[in-house]
Amino acid sequence: LDQASPSYRTHAITLDVLYADTDAMGIVYYANYLRFFEAGRLGYICAFAEDHARWVPEGVRLPVTQVNCRYRRPAQVFERITVETVLQNVKRASFGFAYRILRGGELLVEGETDHAYTDETGRVRRFDERILRFLANARQ
Amino acid sequence: LDQASPSYRTHAITLDVLYADTDAMGIVYYANYLRFFEAGRLGYICAFAEDHARWVPEGVRLPVTQVNCRYRRPAQVFERITVETVLQNVKRASFGFAYRILRGGELLVEGETDHAYTDETGRVRRFDERILRFLANARQ
Amino acid sequence: LDQASPSYRTHAITLDVLYADTDAMGIVYYANYLRFFEAGRLGYICAFAEDHARWVPEGVRLPVTQVNCRYRRPAQVFERITVETVLQNVKRASFGFAYRILRGGELLVEGETDHAYTDETGRVRRFDERILRFLANARQ
Amino acid sequence: LDQASPSYRTHAITLDVLYADTDAMGIVYYANYLRFFEAGRLGYICAFAEDHARWVPEGVRLPVTQVNCRYRRPAQVFERITVETVLQNVKRASFGFAYRILRGGELLVEGETDHAYTDETGRVRRFDERILRFLANARQ
Repeated sequence: LDQASPSYRTHAITLDVLYADTDAMGIVYYANYLRFFEAGRLGYICAFAEDHARWVPEGVRLPVTQVNCRYRRPAQVFERITVETVLQNVKRASFGFAYRILRGGELLVEGETDHAYTDETGRVRRFDERILRFLANARQ
Repeated sequence: LDQASPSYRTHAITLDVLYADTDAMGIVYYANYLRFFEAGRLGYICAFAEDHARWVPEGVRLPVTQVNCRYRRPAQVFERITVETVLQNVKRASFGFAYRILRGGELLVEGETDHAYTDETGRVRRFDERILRFLANARQ
Repeated sequence: LDQASPSYRTHAITLDVLYADTDAMGIVYYANYLRFFEAGRLGYICAFAEDHARWVPEGVRLPVTQVNCRYRRPAQVFERITVETVLQNVKRASFGFAYRILRGGELLVEGETDHAYTDETGRVRRFDERILRFLANARQ
Repeated sequence: LDQASPSYRTHAITLDVLYADTDAMGIVYYANYLRFFEAGRLGYICAFAEDHARWVPEGVRLPVTQVNCRYRRPAQVFERITVETVLQNVKRASFGFAYRILRGGELLVEGETDHAYTDETGRVRRFDERILRFLANARQ
């Protein structure tokens, strides 16, 4: 009867690990998985926001307010990895994403980010038509 | 009666924010605060491990198993920031650090990392004399 | 009559510019085009070296000895760019690549890298069967 | 009598190499020396421009138009390196820097960058009082 939180679609991209992503431990540097999260996020927005090309020029900003990341197994240079991204924590002026980074079927890293929805000066705003359409498209 | 967890000293470093650290939102890119955490961590180890110069050549590795980060206010290019680092979560074969990034007295970002203690092949090992001396030096 | 230097095939990849690639000037940070060069290089090796998946595990290293880069026009976040890569300067134990980064038909950045061919300890070696096959595959 | 090109002072900073700077070859990733160049450049500007804190807020931009870099010997994680920076190629609306990266007395990497002097929209401008004072301060 009361509304369960809606569930959102998952979107996957693949990436090839570069030397640029790794460090002298021979594995991907821990901060660079957050870059992979961003690539997953961009892929998600391109998949479900029809007007995504105008988001940046029209002042849409999604600054990160929080990130959590658990490192299970390391990725290495030249490996092909998959980033699975899904919307979550949709609120009035913020939303989040959860990420799973895999190599083949093996889970390497998982994490979450939360984002504010702001204009280009950093001022938070309520969701407008643009975001509501994006969220509707992403629902299962 | 029961043992309170020991408390550790805090160590601070200062950094100047480069364009390399920022992104097109005009502020430090969210993953680059993890680089600042690493700089704080390296400063901490250099302050309290007398033999720190031999850690890497002698096979000490401290891979990150988890990171959490909350972004309060953004840092910008050319600003001088402080990274305060303190040991925490000391266990049998792992420990963690907590970080606070400040500009003047203002808190910008705070976070935590957890680390395994491994050899250069990534195999976890129990703390040896080297680590125990480091931990003892860092205690208040 | 005398041998003209052989000419090699060009290989192109496309990339989407992330916030991670940009800086507070609102454009791609100058060092990150060298990351794009690496992505072009990896694409080139994957296209023309049949055994590329074994290069890293079997100790092939191609450390950069020189890079030059001219910046004509900047790339911006969310833009799709193309990296065109071509082999050049093939010598006895070294070779190079030339790169052109384009957005649509517009040239943004061009540059070159030179590489030594070494083992995993950094010792230079003469070209072996592996490299000769790669070079032959890349010739027009 | 004939004008020699004026000679400028050299400014040195020291840096500690982080894992963030390295890659899976166990050495500093080639693009990250350009980050070290930027740190040297920032140190230079802070040393010789009295009003450097207002450069960014007041719209001074110095986009890179060209970079060259020769890699002699690699730097490794936890090493302390020195970046020596010196002005050169001073023209009407552009100038350059030359860099030498050293470990102890040993030369690791050397390179040069050229920069346009622009406003925040990227429009080139002639040198004003601000830049002329900076150049005068930097002269030997």
